[in-house]
Amino acid sequence: VPAAVWAVVVAGGSGSRFGRPKQFHVLAGRPVVEWAVTAARSVAEGVVLVLPDTRGDVSFGADVVVAGGPTRSSSVRLGLGAVPDAAEIVVVHDAARPLASEALFRAVVAPLLDDPTVTGVVCALPVADTLKRVARGAASVVETVDRSELVAVQTPQAFRLEALRAAHATGADATDDAALVEAGGGTVRVVPGERGNVKLTTPDDLVLLERLAPGER
Amino acid sequence: VPAAVWAVVVAGGSGSRFGRPKQFHVLAGRPVVEWAVTAARSVAEGVVLVLPDTRGDVSFGADVVVAGGPTRSSSVRLGLGAVPDAAEIVVVHDAARPLASEALFRAVVAPLLDDPTVTGVVCALPVADTLKRVARGAASVVETVDRSELVAVQTPQAFRLEALRAAHATGADATDDAALVEAGGGTVRVVPGERGNVKLTTPDDLVLLERLAPGER
Repeated sequence: VPAAVWAVVVAGGSGSRFGRPKQFHVLAGRPVVEWAVTAARSVAEGVVLVLPDTRGDVSFGADVVVAGGPTRSSSVRLGLGAVPDAAEIVVVHDAARPLASEALFRAVVAPLLDDPTVTGVVCALPVADTLKRVARGAASVVETVDRSELVAVQTPQAFRLEALRAAHATGADATDDAALVEAGGGTVRVVPGERGNVKLTTPDDLVLLERLAPGER
Repeated sequence: VPAAVWAVVVAGGSGSRFGRPKQFHVLAGRPVVEWAVTAARSVAEGVVLVLPDTRGDVSFGADVVVAGGPTRSSSVRLGLGAVPDAAEIVVVHDAARPLASEALFRAVVAPLLDDPTVTGVVCALPVADTLKRVARGAASVVETVDRSELVAVQTPQAFRLEALRAAHATGADATDDAALVEAGGGTVRVVPGERGNVKLTTPDDLVLLERLAPGER
């Protein structure tokens, strides 16, 4: 019997950097959150969608909709609570990345199916740009950072359900689920991410995403 | 009299990560290097183009073409040698970023015109992705990096010509000119970069750039 995979798509943000909840913006004819749910479904038996509120009957194609919490971690925790215990693997994905491909979802799940010593899998790209440290609130460079061993992590990220629940049970807050699993001693693999898997953060990103969305030209 | 601005566009790479010299790929009807020279010209009286070899008569719109060296730093040094001494400000730009806008070129030059205490200006974006350290050659995460004070630097970068020449006179090698200026004690300002100012590194990036190039849809 193949391992049961579920997905948690997190769209809990209130859009403070965006002006309005970015996850509901319509991108090439579909709400951003629906793009994310559709891609997650390609590898998952079921999809839990975490929304800022449950918004009446609108599920965007998810099987279960739950209301999120005040932080990303709390929203993921609430989503994990709705995943059936029979699931073995859970894929966590930010709704703000609508263009993650189905192939990318398969790529993060595969190492967990193949290797029992793997606790989690993230997708990431090499850091192509020079990184500099700028003091908070300042406008000048403090130092240039060695980027040779750094990667920029995206979602989707896949985990053994039990391990991710245990990591979140500590109540710790993190912008990234894998960081919690690493803190618990888990082994997190890295597979290649996608350049087109852009995170919708500011209105400018929408222009980029509109150009990248399939079927737009 | 306004300060004289020149530009050095560096296209010295041999394309080892790309398979062939990426700077000559035709993007939306024009070679990548020509996009870069055209944008640089918008703020500069003259443009020095550094090529792997001088390629006969092809200048891609630059005023001066010089042959590059074995490293990026050596190529920039050779380009700086061809900038007239009368220039006060030099803008350095990687040809592998064909879609940097004219507005971005103006933005990196402006602080040097306005504030005599500024030695250099880079453009950069906040680091939107979680960063993780992966040991060289390994496939698992070592640690998650605090990104709160980090920015991802792009080109164009602008400098006082004298300061950049002095920084390069040390013969030090760096992937980034501002790092040399910082090492020499210069004050480097940071202005906002552009999400569309993508660096052409791998063939996949070309797909992204083709979609982003103006006039393509």
